Amino acid sequence: MAKLARKVALIGAGMSKFGRNFPLKRNPDMWVEAWLNAVGTVDNGIAPKDVDACYVGNYSSDLFNHQGHLGPQMANLVGLTPKPASRFEGACASSGIALRQAVIAIASGIHDVIAVSGVECMNELPTALVTDTLATASDALFEYPAGATFPGLYATIATAHFHKYGTTAEDLMHVGIKNHINGAENPYAQMQQSIKDMMASKKARYQEEGRDVPDWKDEFDFLKSSSNPMIAYPLRLFDCSLVTDGAACLFLAAEDVAKKFTDSPIWITGTGQGSAALSLHDRDSLTSFIATREASRQAYEMSGLKPRDIQIAEVHDCFTIAEILAMEDLGFYEKGKAAEAVRNGESKRDGVLPINTSGGLKSKGHPVGATGAAQAVEIFKQMRGIAERNRQVKIDVTRALTHNLGGSGGTCVVTIYEK
Amino acid sequence: MAKLARKVALIGAGMSKFGRNFPLKRNPDMWVEAWLNAVGTVDNGIAPKDVDACYVGNYSSDLFNHQGHLGPQMANLVGLTPKPASRFEGACASSGIALRQAVIAIASGIHDVIAVSGVECMNELPTALVTDTLATASDALFEYPAGATFPGLYATIATAHFHKYGTTAEDLMHVGIKNHINGAENPYAQMQQSIKDMMASKKARYQEEGRDVPDWKDEFDFLKSSSNPMIAYPLRLFDCSLVTDGAACLFLAAEDVAKKFTDSPIWITGTGQGSAALSLHDRDSLTSFIATREASRQAYEMSGLKPRDIQIAEVHDCFTIAEILAMEDLGFYEKGKAAEAVRNGESKRDGVLPINTSGGLKSKGHPVGATGAAQAVEIFKQMRGIAERNRQVKIDVTRALTHNLGGSGGTCVVTIYEK
Repeated sequence: MAKLARKVALIGAGMSKFGRNFPLKRNPDMWVEAWLNAVGTVDNGIAPKDVDACYVGNYSSDLFNHQGHLGPQMANLVGLTPKPASRFEGACASSGIALRQAVIAIASGIHDVIAVSGVECMNELPTALVTDTLATASDALFEYPAGATFPGLYATIATAHFHKYGTTAEDLMHVGIKNHINGAENPYAQMQQSIKDMMASKKARYQEEGRDVPDWKDEFDFLKSSSNPMIAYPLRLFDCSLVTDGAACLFLAAEDVAKKFTDSPIWITGTGQGSAALSLHDRDSLTSFIATREASRQAYEMSGLKPRDIQIAEVHDCFTIAEILAMEDLGFYEKGKAAEAVRNGESKRDGVLPINTSGGLKSKGHPVGATGAAQAVEIFKQMRGIAERNRQVKIDVTRALTHNLGGSGGTCVVTIYEK
Repeated sequence: MAKLARKVALIGAGMSKFGRNFPLKRNPDMWVEAWLNAVGTVDNGIAPKDVDACYVGNYSSDLFNHQGHLGPQMANLVGLTPKPASRFEGACASSGIALRQAVIAIASGIHDVIAVSGVECMNELPTALVTDTLATASDALFEYPAGATFPGLYATIATAHFHKYGTTAEDLMHVGIKNHINGAENPYAQMQQSIKDMMASKKARYQEEGRDVPDWKDEFDFLKSSSNPMIAYPLRLFDCSLVTDGAACLFLAAEDVAKKFTDSPIWITGTGQGSAALSLHDRDSLTSFIATREASRQAYEMSGLKPRDIQIAEVHDCFTIAEILAMEDLGFYEKGKAAEAVRNGESKRDGVLPINTSGGLKSKGHPVGATGAAQAVEIFKQMRGIAERNRQVKIDVTRALTHNLGGSGGTCVVTIYEK
């Protein structure tokens, strides 16, 4: 994989509040909110005239909102008409692809500054149709008609991982507990409460209502109770990410123009993308994603970094088991060894390799097409030292990574950031 | 607009048969057919191992086929897994965007060879839902709920053009007649019959059935009769493109590797993309597309060519009026002067500037996401001198252009080819 012909910097990044925003806010509203928040992070300011193109990541506004052709619509809302405006789709990796294509376009010399967006408004549909819409990212001929929606597909992957490596349901709970602790520190997250606090709230409410108060000793007791119903064995409710409306915005600039906007650019030194057969039955392995291995191989090679060089990462925890797989497939841990690291707290905010300090898809929320760009927003904030509340990591982050997955691993985009 | 950092060649191009292919063929089947036909045009052969990435243009498999995430699915079908595979969307300009992004990616140095596809399978839906799905490329808040589907939007544009420039319904008929004459010479076209032959067939059938035979003197009489019903005044049935299933495939290669595949590369020397507000009511003009003007400005500037240098063009005739607008907005004719040129036969296959020798969207068909790539297939064949039957133009084509429009002009991609 060639080096990029021109260095590319992330010069600004912001996101809308993630959550159940519909019907008060739709894609256009959330995109403008994200744009303005990103503009606010560009040290010397940025105006529409400075931006050459608008790259929009979105999974399926077609099915969620009965609106296609988002590129020119989003561009027009922020004054970019008649500049190039395109939509990029790769299921839940859609804005990861938009980010990567923007890096490539700037490297090519055709554009100097690009606004990358990720947008998705999922709550316009009732939950059953959200599940149905997401399932169109699996194989619509073989998987979906068999009833295998995403919780079922990831449950299959979890079961295989349990069988092969001895991973347990309790290991998965460690992932969810950590990510909710992080999300509680993110004012843009959909859920801003730790699982321990949720448990305490529920106990208090039961007491107030004069009901028997459950004798949960800790979060694990709570997560093993009927308060955390089984969705698809072994995945329970708190193993699943959220149904979210949200948008994110990134400003990328070529090396030679970045200095006009900031003295503290975050360099994108590696980008990689991989693919796999959509259907699990077409894959060689259920416990490892070839798309992640391929994407990270390319990104490491381009940047010259190794997995051990990465200080923090945002990985695609659409289900808790996916975070375990990512930690292994990205090379942070050997296969079968990530669960132990999670149990030991290595991926906590103060651990040796903090993962999903934003709260991840689990607690920050997962507006599918916006997730890849939102991961980059968190890395930008952590590397700049401007992460809100108490989630700023204590180390000076000079090397970070995002991992954005589509579907059940059919697409993966890995991006490496340095300063 | 910068020059491309590396020259990019079109080294092979092919398409599936366009037509009503569903349910016998769906996107996967048509894509493989297009891939194989494109492979057959690469002089020294090409194999999956030679291809670095798969770029898929598709408008809305989400709504047409309840299948998203086409990138990895298409890549897997032709042996490209686990390489990068992405989908690009810009309504009916989706594969024009895929083509442009592939040119940019090769220019950047990240890839050497890319397979660009355009796919769309529209007939899985009944016609009313096809119209509904296409309408999601207009503004779903303002235009679509008011009942303005695309025939209505283009009827508005046509009426404004009639009013401003004196263009007539008969001028539009010239466009349809020409494009059907061209489509009759394209074995991959959906409709392979001239309007004169259709008229003769209908007369013969009436005679056979003992009915009164209409006294149509020529195609214009036929097109003014009830055999050509009004769809949205002033647009009749034969002013509208078709509902089509189809796929197209292009192989692009960097200058330094193109010679491995062919001694006759077609160079892509210009690419431009423009956008506009989705809603007609947000535009300054109804009779000119700002996205086309912007895209062609960029493409001409990059290539160093002027409109008068172009020898043949494939333009986006989703409705006959759109071909007139394109001829003007691309700078081939002054505003208001294209209709006269059409009447004079200048855009015929043997005219001074042949347009839509493939039959265009009107006769070849318009599988929306595949159209941009299919336009490049025709240019490839004309420049190589391999256009089928009698539609090969008599001149040696060294400079050509494609014009791919999305929606009612919200997106436009213009590409310039030289040899």
